[in-house]
Amino acid sequence: MRMYDIIKKKRDGGELTDEEIRFFVGGYVDGSIPDYQVSALLMAIYFVGMSERETATLTFAVRDSGATLQGLDVGGFRADKHSTGGVGDKTSLAVMPIVAACGVKVAKMSGRGLGHTGGTVDKLEAIEGFDTALSAEKFADVVKKVGVAIVGQSATLAPADKLLYALRDVTATVDSIPLIASSIMGKKLAACDDCIVLDVKCGSGAFMKTIEDAKRLATAMVDIGKRAGKRISALITDMDIPLGATIGNSLEVVEAIDVLRGKAPKDLTELCIALSAEILWLCGLGNRTECEEMAKQALICGRALDTLAAMVEAQGGNKKWIYDTSFFPRARFTKEVIAPKSGFISSVNAEEYGGVSLLLGAGRSKVGESIDCAAGIVLYKKTGDYVNQGEVIAVLHSSRDCFDAAESKLLAATVIGDKPTKRPLVLDRVE
Amino acid sequence: MRMYDIIKKKRDGGELTDEEIRFFVGGYVDGSIPDYQVSALLMAIYFVGMSERETATLTFAVRDSGATLQGLDVGGFRADKHSTGGVGDKTSLAVMPIVAACGVKVAKMSGRGLGHTGGTVDKLEAIEGFDTALSAEKFADVVKKVGVAIVGQSATLAPADKLLYALRDVTATVDSIPLIASSIMGKKLAACDDCIVLDVKCGSGAFMKTIEDAKRLATAMVDIGKRAGKRISALITDMDIPLGATIGNSLEVVEAIDVLRGKAPKDLTELCIALSAEILWLCGLGNRTECEEMAKQALICGRALDTLAAMVEAQGGNKKWIYDTSFFPRARFTKEVIAPKSGFISSVNAEEYGGVSLLLGAGRSKVGESIDCAAGIVLYKKTGDYVNQGEVIAVLHSSRDCFDAAESKLLAATVIGDKPTKRPLVLDRVE
Repeated sequence: MRMYDIIKKKRDGGELTDEEIRFFVGGYVDGSIPDYQVSALLMAIYFVGMSERETATLTFAVRDSGATLQGLDVGGFRADKHSTGGVGDKTSLAVMPIVAACGVKVAKMSGRGLGHTGGTVDKLEAIEGFDTALSAEKFADVVKKVGVAIVGQSATLAPADKLLYALRDVTATVDSIPLIASSIMGKKLAACDDCIVLDVKCGSGAFMKTIEDAKRLATAMVDIGKRAGKRISALITDMDIPLGATIGNSLEVVEAIDVLRGKAPKDLTELCIALSAEILWLCGLGNRTECEEMAKQALICGRALDTLAAMVEAQGGNKKWIYDTSFFPRARFTKEVIAPKSGFISSVNAEEYGGVSLLLGAGRSKVGESIDCAAGIVLYKKTGDYVNQGEVIAVLHSSRDCFDAAESKLLAATVIGDKPTKRPLVLDRVE
Repeated sequence: MRMYDIIKKKRDGGELTDEEIRFFVGGYVDGSIPDYQVSALLMAIYFVGMSERETATLTFAVRDSGATLQGLDVGGFRADKHSTGGVGDKTSLAVMPIVAACGVKVAKMSGRGLGHTGGTVDKLEAIEGFDTALSAEKFADVVKKVGVAIVGQSATLAPADKLLYALRDVTATVDSIPLIASSIMGKKLAACDDCIVLDVKCGSGAFMKTIEDAKRLATAMVDIGKRAGKRISALITDMDIPLGATIGNSLEVVEAIDVLRGKAPKDLTELCIALSAEILWLCGLGNRTECEEMAKQALICGRALDTLAAMVEAQGGNKKWIYDTSFFPRARFTKEVIAPKSGFISSVNAEEYGGVSLLLGAGRSKVGESIDCAAGIVLYKKTGDYVNQGEVIAVLHSSRDCFDAAESKLLAATVIGDKPTKRPLVLDRVE
C-alpha cells in the first residue's frame, strides 16, 4: 500500500477502504508517512469529503491510536456532554453536577480554551487549589465516590488527533465536517463513555456559522457514535449570542454556580436543564418529562450544588468557594461600556465578544499562554433587550487598565436597531 | 504575509496576488515555508485552478528562483523546441540540426527519461564519447560555431521547479494544468530563448490523454510565453501511437539520423518538418510555405546531417557514427513478436509500449537508475496497418534474455480489429 495511491484515490473522488484509512493514520503516528503527504490528503478530503463509513473508520483509527479509558472502573453507567465550543459556554460546570446528582457517573476529560472560545479546565483552575491533573486511580476514585470528576485531556489518549489537528491548523484544513467529526469523536470514543450528548454550537460565536453546517456536523458525529454502539444524540444550540451573562474564567464559574443555586440568567439555566435532561433520558432514567423534572429537582433541592462542592473538595479545591462565591478573585480594574444610542440590541457578534475577553487577558491566542482568571466581561444587555442611551451594556474586567481597544471592539460588535430579534436557544435535535 | 492565509484563500476559490505567489515560492526555496504547507496549497490549486495571471506569475517566480541563460552569447537569434514527453519521440535530435542548418541558433538544455517517456540526453549519450555536461563557455562556443548544442539540464536553473516537482510527484498533484504549465515554462524561460515551439503530445502515450486537456495546456503555456515577450506557438500532436518505428535510446538516435538522411518513416519525418518549419516561421525567416521548403531543403542537401555530425564532434562524440550508424551498439538478444491473428491494428496503448521498453532495460522507473542504451523495440506494424497472422509486428532488443513478460505486455497493448483507424499527426495548433 502506498500513500501516493491513497492521496490520488481521494483526489479523484474515490472512497478509501478501511485498510487505507488505518494505513495513513498509523503511518502518520509512527512517522513512516511524512506530513507533506498527509496535508495533501487532508486538503483532498476537504474538497472531496468522506462517506459516513470513511468518517467512522477515521474516527476509530484516531481512537485506537493511543490509550483509552476502557478499563476505568467508576462503578456505574458513564455519560459525557461535549460542546463544540462557544463564547461564554460554562454549561459543563453545571450539567455535570446535575446529572451526577441524579445518579449518572461522569468521568470528564476537558480541554483548555483557545482563541475566542473558553475551556472547562481553565475555568475550574480559577478555584483555589483545584487539581485538573489527577492520576487515573484518583480520577476513578473521585467519580466513584462523588459521581463526577473533571480532569485535563490526557496526552496518551488519541495521539493521532493531536498530530492531525496540529497539521490541519497550519494547512487550512480545519473546516471540514468529516475531519472535525472524526477529531471530536475520536477523542470522545477513547474516553469510553456509555452515553454522549453533543452540544453543537451554531452562530457567530461558533465554528459552525450556519444551521445547515451545524446539522451536518451533528449528524456525522451521531452516526459515528451509533456505529461505535454508543447511546448518543445532539442538540444544536444558538451561539449568535454569548451564553449567559459572563465571559471569562472566574466570572463563568461563578455563573455556573449561580445556575445550581437557581440564580443564573434564564437562557443559561434553560440550556443546562435541556442538556441534563437529554443525558438522563439517553441513560434511560425516565421519559422526557420525567428527566426534565429530575434535572430541575436536582437544582431546587441543592443536591447538584453539593455534588459540585464535593467534587471540588475531592480534587483539592476549596469547597467554601462554591457556597460563597465572593472568595473568587476579582479583577483590579473594571470599566462600564455605555450604550451610544437607544434601541433594541438587534445582533451581536459573539466571536468578537470572545475576542474582547481575549484582549482583557481572559484567553490565549497561542497554545501554552497563561491567562488572567479574573478577567472577562459581564453582560447587562443582550440581543433582544431594549437599551436606553447612556445605559450600561456591559462591564469589562481586567487586571490591566487596557480598556480602550476592548471597549471599542465590543461596541463595534453590538448592533443597536429598531426591532427586537431573537431565536430560540435549542435550534434542533439530532438523534 | 502568512502561508496559512495563502492556502486558505486559494482553498476558498480566491485569486492569489503576485506578492503571495512570490512569497510562497521564495519561502519554499529558502526553507522558511515547510513542505506540508506547500503540498496543501498545491492540492488546493489542483482543485481550484489558477488564473492566467496567477499561472504566469508562478512561472516567473520559478524562472527567477535560480540562474538563467540570459548572458549566454551565441551570436544570433535563439530558438528551442520543447516536447511534453512521449513514447519514441526523437524529434529534437532531427529538428535541432535542421533549424540550425537554416541559421537559427539552438542552445538546448534537455532532460533525462523517466517512466514510459524517453529523454534526449539519454539518447545522445548512446553516441560514443558524447558529452552532455559542457561548461557554459564551451556550450556557448559550440552553439556559436556549429549552430546547435544540446546539454543536460543545469541544476542551477529554476531550482524552485526541482523542489516543487519532487513534492508534486509524491503528493498526487502533478496532473494540474497550471502546475504543469508553470513547471515547463519556468525552466524554458530560464533558458532565455527568443523563440519557443511547444510540441504538446496527446493520447495514450502522453501525460495529456484528451485533445481538450492538451489544448488547455498548450494555451496556458503559449499565454505564459507571450506574457514574457517570447515568440511562441504550440503544435498538438498525436501520441496514441509511438512516434516513428523505434523506442529505445540507440535505436532512436539511429532513426533520427535516418530522418536527416531522408530514410525515416513518413510520420516521423512529417512531424520533424512541421516542427522545424514552425520554428523558422516564428523566427521570421519566411512565410509558412517558404519555411517548410527551407526545412525540406536542409534535409535533402545534407546540411542538417552535417550540422548534427559537427555538433557531435564538437561535443566530444565520434562523428563517424552519424554517417555510418552500424557503429551504434546492438543488443545481444532480439526476439520477434508475431501477430496472433490477421486484421488491421486498430489501436495500441503507447504508454504500455513505453512500459515494454522499460522492461527491456531502455528506461528507468526511478531517477538515477542506469539504462541499457541498446535496448528497445523496433515496430514493423503500427496503428492503421494490416497484418497477417504469423507476421512480425515488432522486434524486441535487450542485453538480457527477458522477453516473455515484454512480449505479452506488447501483445496485450495491441488491438487487432476489422477496421483501419488512424488520426492525423498534427491535431491542432495554438498561437
